[in-house]
Amino acid sequence: MNYAVIGTGIVGRTLAAKLSDLGHKVTIGTRDVRRTLENTEPDGYGNEPFSVWSAAHPDIALATFEEAASTAETVVNATAGMSSLDALRAAGADNLAGKLLIDVANPLDFSQGMPPFLNPVGTDSLGEQIQRAFPDARVVKTLNTMNCSVMVEPSLVPGDHHVFLCGNDADAKEQVSRLLLAFGWPEDALIDLGDITASRATEQTLPLWIQLWTSLGHWNFNFRIQQAG
Amino acid sequence: MNYAVIGTGIVGRTLAAKLSDLGHKVTIGTRDVRRTLENTEPDGYGNEPFSVWSAAHPDIALATFEEAASTAETVVNATAGMSSLDALRAAGADNLAGKLLIDVANPLDFSQGMPPFLNPVGTDSLGEQIQRAFPDARVVKTLNTMNCSVMVEPSLVPGDHHVFLCGNDADAKEQVSRLLLAFGWPEDALIDLGDITASRATEQTLPLWIQLWTSLGHWNFNFRIQQAG
Repeated sequence: MNYAVIGTGIVGRTLAAKLSDLGHKVTIGTRDVRRTLENTEPDGYGNEPFSVWSAAHPDIALATFEEAASTAETVVNATAGMSSLDALRAAGADNLAGKLLIDVANPLDFSQGMPPFLNPVGTDSLGEQIQRAFPDARVVKTLNTMNCSVMVEPSLVPGDHHVFLCGNDADAKEQVSRLLLAFGWPEDALIDLGDITASRATEQTLPLWIQLWTSLGHWNFNFRIQQAG
Repeated sequence: MNYAVIGTGIVGRTLAAKLSDLGHKVTIGTRDVRRTLENTEPDGYGNEPFSVWSAAHPDIALATFEEAASTAETVVNATAGMSSLDALRAAGADNLAGKLLIDVANPLDFSQGMPPFLNPVGTDSLGEQIQRAFPDARVVKTLNTMNCSVMVEPSLVPGDHHVFLCGNDADAKEQVSRLLLAFGWPEDALIDLGDITASRATEQTLPLWIQLWTSLGHWNFNFRIQQAG
């Protein structure tokens, strides 16, 4: 499969590396290729500059949002949530039409400092905004309720824990389910929450995730739905 | 201990019955005692009219919001979240001052049908609204992330699962922690999320809770934070 991963941050890199390890052709999409490669500063979390990471991952290409999306069969939105719609518009609606678009982003607004708040929230969600903006894309929201290291290596958190998915297209969700199994998720770890409006539910867990990150002092944790039977 | 439970719905009844079973003196507060007792209709979830429930719980008194709060040492807000501030104003700021006020409500707005949305949400929460409106009360938000049957009987959900609490007053949280242990929660099930602003985090899990209730088809489940170590 040919994947475009939109976003050069730690989430995009982590997903791109995993997809590449699984044998897929992966292109990371960025707004400005030259600027991304010329940046020599670590990001706010201390992650190495993209060029350093890229040199260690020679099989993963870097291209503009548009180039990456146009040649891909499946597109992954791993941008910061507040800029996701802009990045996907730059990728181009035509380059997303008919394709599976896996949205792992959360619309965290840092404009008022820490902790960030969700925008939109309540009666809307980023997942829905993306599906509305690109009605011909088959959007599946998933993996947005955990740290990116856990996304691609669920065994980092011992025992059973869950990954949610939602979207309007059953085939697209089936395709994502197979990918999650390839990532190492057990079949019974997947919880299908229904159509894309369920993005509200998973995005709104982020404030608790952030609070727990603070309280627990690490991010190798995940939500588990404990129930009878 | 002398408790006032504000709210005559299933959450208030469940908490009142448990507190009474534990040997506490409990008064349920309502807006209009006569109207509450004269109602002969089950509620929207099929729960029996209050008078029927009340006859089976003769040790639990019914009084106005104000009477219940004035004689109580600890007040529990178990009203529907959209009317919590009104009910607590009717209880009276003076009757809440200095007291532990345990807030288990969620500000679910049903005005646009199902599913309800949160109001306030994002940069505010009901827990914070209550603390701001009654600055002399010692508000602790807890138990709002699960069905009321699980609140008072955590073993309904097998295995380990968690209950969150937050608030500005350490002594008040310590008092609530002891009450949770008396409810049957193991000590390591309690996760202190910090000050009352963490109400945003726990209230915003409600959309996921509601979605899971739909997907799983029952409400005997709870959140567990699965982590290493």
